[in-house]
Amino acid sequence: MSDITKVALDAMGGDNAPGEIVKGAVEAVQKRKDIRILLTGREEVLKKELASYTYPADQIQIVNATEVIETAEPPVKAIRGKKDSSIVVAMKMVKRGEADAFVSAGSTGAVLVGGQVLVGRIKGVERPPLAPLIPTMKGVSLLIDCGANVDARPSHLVQFAKMGSIYMESVLGKKNPTVGIVNIGAEEEKGNALVKETFPMLKACSDINFIGSVEARDIPYGAADVIVCEAFVGNVILKLYEGVGGALIKKVKSGMMTSLRSKIGGLLVKPALKETMKDFDASQYGGAPLLGLTGLVVKTHGSSTSTEVCNSIIQCVTFKEQKINEKIKAAIQKTQEEKND
Amino acid sequence: MSDITKVALDAMGGDNAPGEIVKGAVEAVQKRKDIRILLTGREEVLKKELASYTYPADQIQIVNATEVIETAEPPVKAIRGKKDSSIVVAMKMVKRGEADAFVSAGSTGAVLVGGQVLVGRIKGVERPPLAPLIPTMKGVSLLIDCGANVDARPSHLVQFAKMGSIYMESVLGKKNPTVGIVNIGAEEEKGNALVKETFPMLKACSDINFIGSVEARDIPYGAADVIVCEAFVGNVILKLYEGVGGALIKKVKSGMMTSLRSKIGGLLVKPALKETMKDFDASQYGGAPLLGLTGLVVKTHGSSTSTEVCNSIIQCVTFKEQKINEKIKAAIQKTQEEKND
Repeated sequence: MSDITKVALDAMGGDNAPGEIVKGAVEAVQKRKDIRILLTGREEVLKKELASYTYPADQIQIVNATEVIETAEPPVKAIRGKKDSSIVVAMKMVKRGEADAFVSAGSTGAVLVGGQVLVGRIKGVERPPLAPLIPTMKGVSLLIDCGANVDARPSHLVQFAKMGSIYMESVLGKKNPTVGIVNIGAEEEKGNALVKETFPMLKACSDINFIGSVEARDIPYGAADVIVCEAFVGNVILKLYEGVGGALIKKVKSGMMTSLRSKIGGLLVKPALKETMKDFDASQYGGAPLLGLTGLVVKTHGSSTSTEVCNSIIQCVTFKEQKINEKIKAAIQKTQEEKND
Repeated sequence: MSDITKVALDAMGGDNAPGEIVKGAVEAVQKRKDIRILLTGREEVLKKELASYTYPADQIQIVNATEVIETAEPPVKAIRGKKDSSIVVAMKMVKRGEADAFVSAGSTGAVLVGGQVLVGRIKGVERPPLAPLIPTMKGVSLLIDCGANVDARPSHLVQFAKMGSIYMESVLGKKNPTVGIVNIGAEEEKGNALVKETFPMLKACSDINFIGSVEARDIPYGAADVIVCEAFVGNVILKLYEGVGGALIKKVKSGMMTSLRSKIGGLLVKPALKETMKDFDASQYGGAPLLGLTGLVVKTHGSSTSTEVCNSIIQCVTFKEQKINEKIKAAIQKTQEEKND
């Protein structure tokens, strides 16, 4: 049935696998009737995990995969060598059309390599970018690319901008999303060679809402809906977000522990603070899609709990319903036609 | 007298000029006898500002400069065109040896261009990097380069590592400072072309304490004393630090205002929190030096108040006392000898 979204889920990847991954799968099928999950991993382990839950049995199916790709393994070697790993088995199901999407909390490198090698790119897509959502004061922004393609070329960044816009509009429901390019100043003449070359190309795109340069300082305030950058820079942004955020929260907590007065204040302030901080967390939106592939590949955080896994699975339904890949195909084709004109 | 440090101070640059700049100069000379300040800017304006303070008059001298370079002006044109600006007049004094150092809260671009064109590089230094201190959970790290030289080459980064190490050891008193290169993973084979080429070169340096790759996530936790990166990436790190920090503090504050309970808690917790947050602020250490020039050039934050200006001036004394430039000259020469071997 075409109104069912089939998600191949890597049950063995991530810090909390398989426990939280299986739990996330159960939560997803308890919430939605239109999802079917293909859980890849060691059958006996997964059977045991599933045994403790009550759920519609026809919505979760175990697909045995005896090997596990560890985070530290060199990705190319792992994808080639471990043919019976939970990642390879799941991705091949996407390739063959037996699954619409793939979700993993495992090795980012293996997911990126597998996505390109096993699932394959949409015709015309030069490089598939990894595009996580990051929290801002206004909601979330899509950071694209954030680790898939270092040393990218201007034409790649233009495709990222288009794919990112489609994703933000169709999956996040952001009408006519603004697109900014990460730069070291607001003026058009600023930047490194890549940005200087890409800027006028983005400006010339009729199908995106390009607003120009965005300085890193303004990203957390929601400067643009789609933040375009090269993967090295994107990775630095994503990880520094985490690092500065984590360090500051630690500082705030330790500040609250310095005196009796501050401890009492901390207790009083805690519930409200927890609530506010929830807004500054993008995990409720699911994982980071690897865009431009023939099937959807979603990478969730290595430390994902069941909630994030569940959200990532549900995100796949929206992705399918909104026909994102058809829209990406059309946009890429349009770009090529413009080029040939 | 050689034990006096002469600082040319741009009185017209920055958001709070000339008020806070002049105040900072007064604070510095009230603290230290061994400083002499050459205040460049509009004489009549500065005279009026100075009139409201009591200070040792022989320690501050006004040097008239009728023009002001605005932040938005294209730097090269500004430095060339405004020969009587506070920046150009001050930098020329450094060039002629009439001042040991230059401090400005004005246009970063103009300071960078002026430093190269007017003050000039130490022989052998390929590119002078801008190296601000950033706060970490362990104290501060030196971020080098952070805006001066986009699209740098590996040999530049190696020089940055050496100059940064000298600065951290001699000015900050950090013995045998650790040096890390910003990367998107901890393994040696990770990275973009620049990092992959630079990594083994840094590893081969006998005169620095290279510890390998540093991921952006770990920078706020004090992963290395000297954080080496290309200027575009450094600029993103510096500004995102500011952005995420500012946004989170805003979130915490708004969280404290959500209910009566949290408001009371907020009041109780405020003094302790303020104290803790002070640690997470690098401005007490002064501004960012532009290293590798024949004189010292220091860029302080555009929004600097008198305290930062004063700290930046005092930083110049340490820089001179510790003979940083002699040490840089020796290190650069050593590198060239090693190359020729």
